[in-house]
Amino acid sequence: MAKFMDVHHGMEGITAEQLRQSHQSDLDIEGDEGVHFEAAWADPEAGIVYCLSEAPSAEAVQRIHERSGHMADEIHPVPLSV
Amino acid sequence: MAKFMDVHHGMEGITAEQLRQSHQSDLDIEGDEGVHFEAAWADPEAGIVYCLSEAPSAEAVQRIHERSGHMADEIHPVPLSV
Repeated sequence: MAKFMDVHHGMEGITAEQLRQSHQSDLDIEGDEGVHFEAAWADPEAGIVYCLSEAPSAEAVQRIHERSGHMADEIHPVPLSV
Repeated sequence: MAKFMDVHHGMEGITAEQLRQSHQSDLDIEGDEGVHFEAAWADPEAGIVYCLSEAPSAEAVQRIHERSGHMADEIHPVPLSV
């Protein structure tokens, strides 16, 4: 398992409820790929969402996001954290 | 107070110890601006570091990073989180 930060662009105007629902739709199926989405943060003005996860691979993260209807634009392994 | 995600590029090859030291140098002076850096994550291969903070403004975040010798390339307010 490794940690990943993925980034979504084009999310201008996202609301708290939309972020909550999108995150929940990931949580509902994340177990299928051995992924866990730990947190997400949104900048509605710039339209950026960051998601932090633990997962076996970036591909597993993307498969969950794709099935939930919101593919990530970037997925970065972040092996270092403080 | 608000939450911010800031992003540093050009950090290729950053080590765990360098990330820890950089984070500590922020923590040492963050109180001067009422900022608190909660966490940081690094992708050494792509050279990207993400920092999550609570702060009165993006400018306050940048002033701490600047004094610590590592200005952020982007600072995003992230008023929404899950």
